[in-house]
Amino acid sequence: MACGTCANENAYKAVFIWYRTKQRGGSMPSKEDLESCMRDMPPGSPKLSILSFQGGFHGRTLGCLATSHSKPIQKVDIPSLVWPVAPFPQLRYPLELYAEENRREEERCLDAVWKIIVESKTTGQPVAGIVVEPIQAEGGDHHASNTFFRRLQRIAKDNDAAMIVDEVQTGVGLTGRMWAHEHWGLEEPPDFVTFAKKMLIGGYYYKDEFRPQGGYRIINTWVGDPAKLVLLEAVIRVIEEDRLLDNMRETGDVLLEGLRTLENKYPDVLDGSRGQGSFCAVDCPTEAVRNKLIYALRNKGVQAGGCGERTIRCRPALIFQPHHAEMFLDIFNGVLAQGNIR
Amino acid sequence: MACGTCANENAYKAVFIWYRTKQRGGSMPSKEDLESCMRDMPPGSPKLSILSFQGGFHGRTLGCLATSHSKPIQKVDIPSLVWPVAPFPQLRYPLELYAEENRREEERCLDAVWKIIVESKTTGQPVAGIVVEPIQAEGGDHHASNTFFRRLQRIAKDNDAAMIVDEVQTGVGLTGRMWAHEHWGLEEPPDFVTFAKKMLIGGYYYKDEFRPQGGYRIINTWVGDPAKLVLLEAVIRVIEEDRLLDNMRETGDVLLEGLRTLENKYPDVLDGSRGQGSFCAVDCPTEAVRNKLIYALRNKGVQAGGCGERTIRCRPALIFQPHHAEMFLDIFNGVLAQGNIR
Repeated sequence: MACGTCANENAYKAVFIWYRTKQRGGSMPSKEDLESCMRDMPPGSPKLSILSFQGGFHGRTLGCLATSHSKPIQKVDIPSLVWPVAPFPQLRYPLELYAEENRREEERCLDAVWKIIVESKTTGQPVAGIVVEPIQAEGGDHHASNTFFRRLQRIAKDNDAAMIVDEVQTGVGLTGRMWAHEHWGLEEPPDFVTFAKKMLIGGYYYKDEFRPQGGYRIINTWVGDPAKLVLLEAVIRVIEEDRLLDNMRETGDVLLEGLRTLENKYPDVLDGSRGQGSFCAVDCPTEAVRNKLIYALRNKGVQAGGCGERTIRCRPALIFQPHHAEMFLDIFNGVLAQGNIR
Repeated sequence: MACGTCANENAYKAVFIWYRTKQRGGSMPSKEDLESCMRDMPPGSPKLSILSFQGGFHGRTLGCLATSHSKPIQKVDIPSLVWPVAPFPQLRYPLELYAEENRREEERCLDAVWKIIVESKTTGQPVAGIVVEPIQAEGGDHHASNTFFRRLQRIAKDNDAAMIVDEVQTGVGLTGRMWAHEHWGLEEPPDFVTFAKKMLIGGYYYKDEFRPQGGYRIINTWVGDPAKLVLLEAVIRVIEEDRLLDNMRETGDVLLEGLRTLENKYPDVLDGSRGQGSFCAVDCPTEAVRNKLIYALRNKGVQAGGCGERTIRCRPALIFQPHHAEMFLDIFNGVLAQGNIR
């Protein structure tokens, strides 16, 4: 597939096909299914949903938009399927100070997921799958614990829903592992992992049981782009040869430690430093302050980015090394020291 | 955009944004719009639709699928938005024998379009736009007259609906013009023309009034692929220098004349020869016969394709010349002469 959005759209489709096939006891679609879908009516066009999270982002085509809830500008004026949305944990930092509070927050979110899925079975629109980012990236770099994701997988499994891990932003090394979900210690692999960006081509990998029977169900005109696979092979070779995953962990340690130091030094401007590998972020008190900082950094030669409403995100290339992180932190300190940000 | 599907998804979104902006008297989204869209509820997530045609195909993501009605295998088991679908003319060939019948058939379809749009205004889900292919390609190479399309544009205009011409298959030369809709003699250009395939990149061009106010409304990560524009420039240069549009018309004359001759010679196997430029097709009595012919052609070195249920479609490259058409017709005649097709 050409992009991450297309990867997600097709993963959703594969989940729906899997769910309906189970409901039919493994049979292919019936004559009634084939006829009714041409009128966009059940049973051929079933009432099923993908459960997503508040603050999540999975793309901007109409199917993906029904699961994206990070910013109104992406959704407003566009008709939507109405699918359930669960709260995603809003953790407090530093984590060690708020362990019990954060545990309760994750509990609250998992309870909501469980309740939505169980109730959906009686409302005529069952949840066929869950889609989740390892770190809610567009939404403002919201993390959750490894335990949260392990329990989320358990809830999906117990309720016959598939679990799609959207690694379009987190995949391919930035978190210090090839895939962010490798940090979680899952009982079994996710049902689907979707990818794009650093993979240079969009797509997903998945468990065998999710392969639709028969042909022409998940397909497109291009059916891939072989030249990009050659490029990807080179990318993966360099990641291995140059130990770039190790580099992302080592750089991330410097980056996060540095952000924490700046946060302690400028507590009225920075807050909530967090990260996994070099996938780091820090919050500002308001959107205006965040944008002011980003412009100031740009004027010093640093291309920083925002996410969520008031977060600065670090998304360095895999070749960004500890001494580059020091350079960035030094410039960031200089910008903050000017003292005219708020 | 990366593909034709993505082009259509975004054209639909631009239509919805335009329609809602008009409803607001030109204002940006209200606070209520921005809040309600995050819950996928009106007015932020409005109840609006894109009207499409039976037999049409516009892609396989969830938004496009709601407008695709060519084959059940593409739709079955996937939840859908429920948007209105109008009949597309089923013309009889040769056209000169069935002029009056075909005129009535087109009238019937236009009446249905008009009725659906007018009624949609009172049902709480107005039609914001119409999407139509110049030739229904996946659906079985269904053509309609230039008058049909001119009147369709008039109906859209009179009812404040946008008209999207999906030229993903018909665009870039095969019909003997750069864009198939150039044949129609429209009063004014279409509101949107979507493209991909031979353009090497997906996208749409559109009238100024459909440009959303403000940024970040129609956008994606890649925001284009400059290398493909360099390739496209070369494609367009060669089309002009080698007079490939003329070539498609000249080759098409040979191709269509040849298909008609074969149809007269083998009337129990071929029927309904039709074409525009080299975008030609012929029907078989059944899907089984059609597939048998395609396999027999392949065994003689011709890669032919099917569309609809029982149609053979010709989609030659722009460099396919009259003498290539003669070679194809000769092989096709040889396959038909074996007499063991039915």
